[in-house]
Amino acid sequence: MRNIKLLVAYDGSRYHGWERQKQEPTVQQTLEEALGALTGEQARVFASGRTDAGVHALGQVLNFHTRSRHSPETFVRALNAHLPDDVVVRAAEEVASEFHANYDTLRKLYRYVIYDGPTPDPFTRRYAYHSRVHLDTGAMHCCAQALRGTHDFHSFETEWPNRSTSVRTVTYIAAGRAPQWQLWESCTLPGGQNDPKSPGAPEPHFIFLDVQADGFLYNMVRAIAGTLINVGRGFWPQSKVAEVLEAEDRRAAGPTAPAHALFLVRVDY
Amino acid sequence: MRNIKLLVAYDGSRYHGWERQKQEPTVQQTLEEALGALTGEQARVFASGRTDAGVHALGQVLNFHTRSRHSPETFVRALNAHLPDDVVVRAAEEVASEFHANYDTLRKLYRYVIYDGPTPDPFTRRYAYHSRVHLDTGAMHCCAQALRGTHDFHSFETEWPNRSTSVRTVTYIAAGRAPQWQLWESCTLPGGQNDPKSPGAPEPHFIFLDVQADGFLYNMVRAIAGTLINVGRGFWPQSKVAEVLEAEDRRAAGPTAPAHALFLVRVDY
Repeated sequence: MRNIKLLVAYDGSRYHGWERQKQEPTVQQTLEEALGALTGEQARVFASGRTDAGVHALGQVLNFHTRSRHSPETFVRALNAHLPDDVVVRAAEEVASEFHANYDTLRKLYRYVIYDGPTPDPFTRRYAYHSRVHLDTGAMHCCAQALRGTHDFHSFETEWPNRSTSVRTVTYIAAGRAPQWQLWESCTLPGGQNDPKSPGAPEPHFIFLDVQADGFLYNMVRAIAGTLINVGRGFWPQSKVAEVLEAEDRRAAGPTAPAHALFLVRVDY
Repeated sequence: MRNIKLLVAYDGSRYHGWERQKQEPTVQQTLEEALGALTGEQARVFASGRTDAGVHALGQVLNFHTRSRHSPETFVRALNAHLPDDVVVRAAEEVASEFHANYDTLRKLYRYVIYDGPTPDPFTRRYAYHSRVHLDTGAMHCCAQALRGTHDFHSFETEWPNRSTSVRTVTYIAAGRAPQWQLWESCTLPGGQNDPKSPGAPEPHFIFLDVQADGFLYNMVRAIAGTLINVGRGFWPQSKVAEVLEAEDRRAAGPTAPAHALFLVRVDY
């Protein structure tokens, strides 16, 4: 049996998360059906981890075992031909038989996307959380650094059975404005009203909150996002984040921010 | 009667274009219903021009007359509360009674968005045309300059009754890669595999084709896009664009590119 590793992107809007369910459509089921149609085998696909209902992926990693002789390039092309347009195989490679997309993960990077323009943005409404008030991203970035390192993240965990420990190591955390989607609204006319290089150009309204860790608790990034948004809007002081962490109590943290703005960006092995 | 000018963005995916129709939902009808609900008047809304089915707007301009005493800020907030989330009022101002959003236009800027990554992008599938082959944007930009200035654009016009002339003046045309949506896939980890500043960072895959003119013929930008894509993929030489223009024959140009990648960006008065 060959072992094939896939890099997959999906728009999670339509799915009830990654993991197969009896009734509702899931990404796992969608991929296993496309694989079955291509290879004639009843494939079982292993992911780096499940994503919840509505959560997206830019770089989910999977593996599956097959007797099929298709080249990795053929798997990419033929799977995309079988898949709906909200699930895309970006790359495929044959890997050692021991590789397991879930057991072998070293780190994962998630991104929470916030839009704080004064009016909603119709083109990113499925992929960004709209904050009606302007956020202080400098404050969000600074206080987020308290979460770096190895801590008990119980304050940022929605209760979930069978968790032996809520200690995790955050290797990277950053909040900042992303100029790119602002350009989306601009035009390239030199010196024009919306030229991003011109002096009167408006501040970008998209904020990326990136969190990389060796593992994530249930709803952890969304609870961190809800907490940092409370700081960014001036509702909580920056010192609050370290206090929330120390409390080891979910009630101390901010609300769980909505799922539709969360992306699994990258998995490292 | 007051005269109110609105700046409006919409995701055209769900609409059969701007103009009111008997059966199908349109953006005009959606806005007039929201205005009616807010003011109690049977409002008639005038746009800078109609957009076709599936075409989006970042900066459509409208005006309407009203006896309502709401402030411009209230119009923005209250209309957005009444509108579905794919139509957004970005700004409102009270203008002189003579102002007419259609008759007074000086120039409009349209953008055609192309994605030429090797695999489709699930997050922009509604807003960009996917070219399966890599496009030479330098060649596209160069030969597009032949369209600048005052010409008979009959070759780029889908037949439309009651057009007295197909002479238009293109004041700006440019094709280039837009780095921003590439960043969307990247992470901010310094020196990381996807760090856009790192040496191995992949080339951006989004291409903006911006065309500004004093007026547009039916399907003009989409015919220009279809023609330039034929050059970009190496199917036609750069010299072909000037030949197509001179032919004054629609059959000489490339195909009409799909509507879902076209945006009305800005209207100047």
